[in-house]
Amino acid sequence: MRNLFMKVTYDGTHYFGFQTQPEGNTVQDMLEQAIAHLTGETVKITASGRTDAGVHAYGQPFNFETASQIPLERWCLALNARLPEDIVVTEAYEVPLSFHSRRAAKRKTYRYTINGNRFPDPFQLRYQFHHPVALDVPAMEEGLKKLIGTYDYTSFASRKSTKTSHVRTIFSAHMEIDRSMCRPDSSDQGVIHTYITGSGFLQHMVRIIMGTLIQVGEGKRKPEDITGILAACNRAAAGPTAMAKGLALWNVSYEDPGEQAGVTGSKKL
Amino acid sequence: MRNLFMKVTYDGTHYFGFQTQPEGNTVQDMLEQAIAHLTGETVKITASGRTDAGVHAYGQPFNFETASQIPLERWCLALNARLPEDIVVTEAYEVPLSFHSRRAAKRKTYRYTINGNRFPDPFQLRYQFHHPVALDVPAMEEGLKKLIGTYDYTSFASRKSTKTSHVRTIFSAHMEIDRSMCRPDSSDQGVIHTYITGSGFLQHMVRIIMGTLIQVGEGKRKPEDITGILAACNRAAAGPTAMAKGLALWNVSYEDPGEQAGVTGSKKL
Repeated sequence: MRNLFMKVTYDGTHYFGFQTQPEGNTVQDMLEQAIAHLTGETVKITASGRTDAGVHAYGQPFNFETASQIPLERWCLALNARLPEDIVVTEAYEVPLSFHSRRAAKRKTYRYTINGNRFPDPFQLRYQFHHPVALDVPAMEEGLKKLIGTYDYTSFASRKSTKTSHVRTIFSAHMEIDRSMCRPDSSDQGVIHTYITGSGFLQHMVRIIMGTLIQVGEGKRKPEDITGILAACNRAAAGPTAMAKGLALWNVSYEDPGEQAGVTGSKKL
Repeated sequence: MRNLFMKVTYDGTHYFGFQTQPEGNTVQDMLEQAIAHLTGETVKITASGRTDAGVHAYGQPFNFETASQIPLERWCLALNARLPEDIVVTEAYEVPLSFHSRRAAKRKTYRYTINGNRFPDPFQLRYQFHHPVALDVPAMEEGLKKLIGTYDYTSFASRKSTKTSHVRTIFSAHMEIDRSMCRPDSSDQGVIHTYITGSGFLQHMVRIIMGTLIQVGEGKRKPEDITGILAACNRAAAGPTAMAKGLALWNVSYEDPGEQAGVTGSKKL
């Protein structure tokens, strides 16, 4: 058997999230069907984590075992030919049988995108939360920085979370404003990207963080309120869950380059 | 009567082009229906020019006469509320009754986008021509520069063109490579944007230019061949018509700022 590790990019608009659901129509289903079509095997893939319905991914890692002898360099094109066009496999590696995409993941980065311009961008409708009302972005970023560290993030987790511990680490977080689409002499405030990198994230965690930071940006809360919200360990203390469509799993990284046992050194596409 | 001048951004994927067709479902139809719904008037709008089926626009100017007394600052939001979400009116001005969006247009810029990366980008499928095979971009740009000037562009016009003169002026043209989505250690060559600014363009002109330059990039033609293709004044001398989806009307400009009679000085949104 071989253990194949791949990365997939997808537009999550038309799927019920990444992970298989009773209703079907998930990214995982599409990938498993494409693999079955290609190899004749029924495989179960393991991803770095799930994404909610409507959430996108630029680089979602997954792995699976196969007896197929198809050469590594053929997999991406062969799978893409059997996938819908909004799901694209971009990288393929062979890794040790012990490698597990979720357990080995060290850092995950999510990006949340707010279009702060006066009008929606018809080319980005499915990937941005449109918020034309003025946002105090420096205040939002000040609040965001207070989330960096190792904390119990219960206030920022869905009440449906079944995890026994809500302690996670946020390593870094920052905001970037892209003003390239701002019209001159307008009230356009740019496209505001928020990047958050952590050890792992609870259900809805990035979206609840964003819903709370948007309230900071609107002046409804102060940046220093974030500290108290964290301490409350109560979902009711935080703001609403921001819309799924603005969220994308941006990147997942594994071991540091020097000590990387699982992925580096493997055969690469 | 008032003469209102507006700019509209649209994703052209689902329309039979800008200009009204017997089959319906054009951007012009949508705009005229929204105006009729808002004002009760049957209006005919005049745009800076037409765009083909599947071609997009970041800033398509149009104007129309109306007896409506709706204040200028309300028009964009009121029309957008009555338009499909892939058509967004972004600017509105009141201009002299003599102003005509097509006749007064001085410079038009089109952008053509090629995704030269190995795999398609699922977030940009409708806005890029995917060409993963290696392209010699410096050779393409060398060929592109040979098109700058005032020429008879018959070789780069659809055979269906009904214009009496095919003489136009290309003022400037350049290419930009966006490598932000390139995966490291890959054969990704970036997203290649070509910007062409001219006095006006013949039917399919930018797409035939791009189809020819792609042949230059593939090594099938040399940059210096462009001069002979121009001189031939024969559509058969040029390359194929590149796919519509990579093309967008990027910007249309009117008088120079100092001498601008039509638009500057008018009431602005």
